[in-house]
Amino acid sequence: MQDKPIVATMIGDPCGIGPEVVVKSLAFGGIHALCRPLVVGSTESVQQTVDMLGLKHTVRRVTDVQDVGLDPAVIDVYDTGQLHPKFITPGQANAECGRACAAWLKEMEDLALAGKVQASIMGPINTDALKMADKFDAVVGVEVGKTYLFLITGPLRVVHLTDHIPLRQVCDIISPDLVYKALRTIHDDFTRWGIPKPRIVVAGLNPHAYGDEDKHQIAPGVEKAKAEGIDVTGPAPPDSVFRWCIDGKYDVVLCMFHDQGHIAVKTWGFVGNCAMILGLPYIHLSVAHGTAFDIVGKGIANHEMMLTAMRQAASLGAGKGFYKEAAGA
Amino acid sequence: MQDKPIVATMIGDPCGIGPEVVVKSLAFGGIHALCRPLVVGSTESVQQTVDMLGLKHTVRRVTDVQDVGLDPAVIDVYDTGQLHPKFITPGQANAECGRACAAWLKEMEDLALAGKVQASIMGPINTDALKMADKFDAVVGVEVGKTYLFLITGPLRVVHLTDHIPLRQVCDIISPDLVYKALRTIHDDFTRWGIPKPRIVVAGLNPHAYGDEDKHQIAPGVEKAKAEGIDVTGPAPPDSVFRWCIDGKYDVVLCMFHDQGHIAVKTWGFVGNCAMILGLPYIHLSVAHGTAFDIVGKGIANHEMMLTAMRQAASLGAGKGFYKEAAGA
Repeated sequence: MQDKPIVATMIGDPCGIGPEVVVKSLAFGGIHALCRPLVVGSTESVQQTVDMLGLKHTVRRVTDVQDVGLDPAVIDVYDTGQLHPKFITPGQANAECGRACAAWLKEMEDLALAGKVQASIMGPINTDALKMADKFDAVVGVEVGKTYLFLITGPLRVVHLTDHIPLRQVCDIISPDLVYKALRTIHDDFTRWGIPKPRIVVAGLNPHAYGDEDKHQIAPGVEKAKAEGIDVTGPAPPDSVFRWCIDGKYDVVLCMFHDQGHIAVKTWGFVGNCAMILGLPYIHLSVAHGTAFDIVGKGIANHEMMLTAMRQAASLGAGKGFYKEAAGA
Repeated sequence: MQDKPIVATMIGDPCGIGPEVVVKSLAFGGIHALCRPLVVGSTESVQQTVDMLGLKHTVRRVTDVQDVGLDPAVIDVYDTGQLHPKFITPGQANAECGRACAAWLKEMEDLALAGKVQASIMGPINTDALKMADKFDAVVGVEVGKTYLFLITGPLRVVHLTDHIPLRQVCDIISPDLVYKALRTIHDDFTRWGIPKPRIVVAGLNPHAYGDEDKHQIAPGVEKAKAEGIDVTGPAPPDSVFRWCIDGKYDVVLCMFHDQGHIAVKTWGFVGNCAMILGLPYIHLSVAHGTAFDIVGKGIANHEMMLTAMRQAASLGAGKGFYKEAAGA
């Protein structure tokens, strides 16, 4: 049991459904078979959630990660006292919760950087609360050429070369170097996580990957990666690569811009997706849904995405590759 | 029975699987309950296919559409003698078949323009054969601002404002006028086909439809259409609109460029899609697959897409709106 990776999960904004989906995942997801879970956040928020759901779990406050997550009947919360419980206002954003979320993200990052936890997950934060606290920059963002948004939805895995950038600008900034760097990052990260020879396919920019940018701004980057032994194909027709990945021909798609990947993921409609930031020195996931203020405290929040994130985090943190839905645990 | 629309289907290149999928759809699809089918092409090719499949249907050559398609045991072929049967070389392209395909397309168009058939379908043609015959322009193409590629795959219906155009150029050419014209065409065509108040959603160009082009080149066109009573929303986030359409919130998506729509359709993976050209004075569909030379004559070609095209053509040609898969015939 001590060999299992420790997966840290920040509860998200305590006024939203974050604590509920975290507690449900720990209580009903069989997650202790895969990892030692550690919750990062407010002990009181977790206790209130356990009570609301009518569970019998013990909520234990910890400030050291030694021996955490061993007992499925105990929820260990890493809590350094960042939030007074009076600020837990269900369904209502406030600056104190925004500030606390930022602090918890920092604490979780420190634990990950120190190797004390093997993977980290960000629960649903609230943008308004973070902005009220002037702490929006605490959320791990994407920096072109360094970090990459990576969406995982069952077998459809998509890394985005660029994020929220106008299409016209995308045409200008993609370059062989940018493509190569992303491929290097994918290859190295995947290898470290237990996918020894990741098969990568690169989406082109233009219809059928048949255009100037495909030829001059993408292809040379792919060739450079190939020359270094990376298993990569492309640039390939953007309308085919996602289906190829779903069908198992590739492990991951590198796409050129936000909507290429997002259209594929959101239209396919597979339930249970999560997001990662690639290119960090630690494993960092998040759930794709928000705080859902309208259903807080009702016990009806769906914890499927959080559970998926925990399973992925556990599998990658253990160096066992991606969690395979179909194969069960 | 005489009230049913006549649906004309061009067999495609006789060296490919076109005749097989047409004959199978007529023999096994229950299509006579929906329309009076007329095949356009070579009587000999259809007869050879009937024999290959071990069917007992009578193949009848007609040159007038009066009284066609009434008897499910008879396959009526509109055949003006364009192709000598010696040129039917299974699995091998030749110029004569290319020339014949072009002639059949012209004949089918003439029938449609004269109102003698209520809908037309192009079977899988062979690009090489058409090029050998220097007749590639016989295939109905897309002209920006006039005609539009329209993909139908179950409830996901997508009209493309532009087709095979580099992304950089797309950013330049989309305009309020182009958007408005497409919306007008969608509204008018759909209304004529029996969808009285089509609900249209327009995909933006940039992430979250939040960019200069969305604001200045798309939105004013949407507003103009709205002012004329067209039920249209947008520009909306490109990564959400396709899922909304699948879920029934809209009847159709107008997307800005080739891959927006094609990524959605091909990734979703619904079986049984077909293509239309919108903006013509008649109903013109085609199947999304090719001539599949490698499996010709084996009787193993899947006729699902052709059958879907015939059902859609019959439903639209009768002014009954789109064929609903789930509801059966």
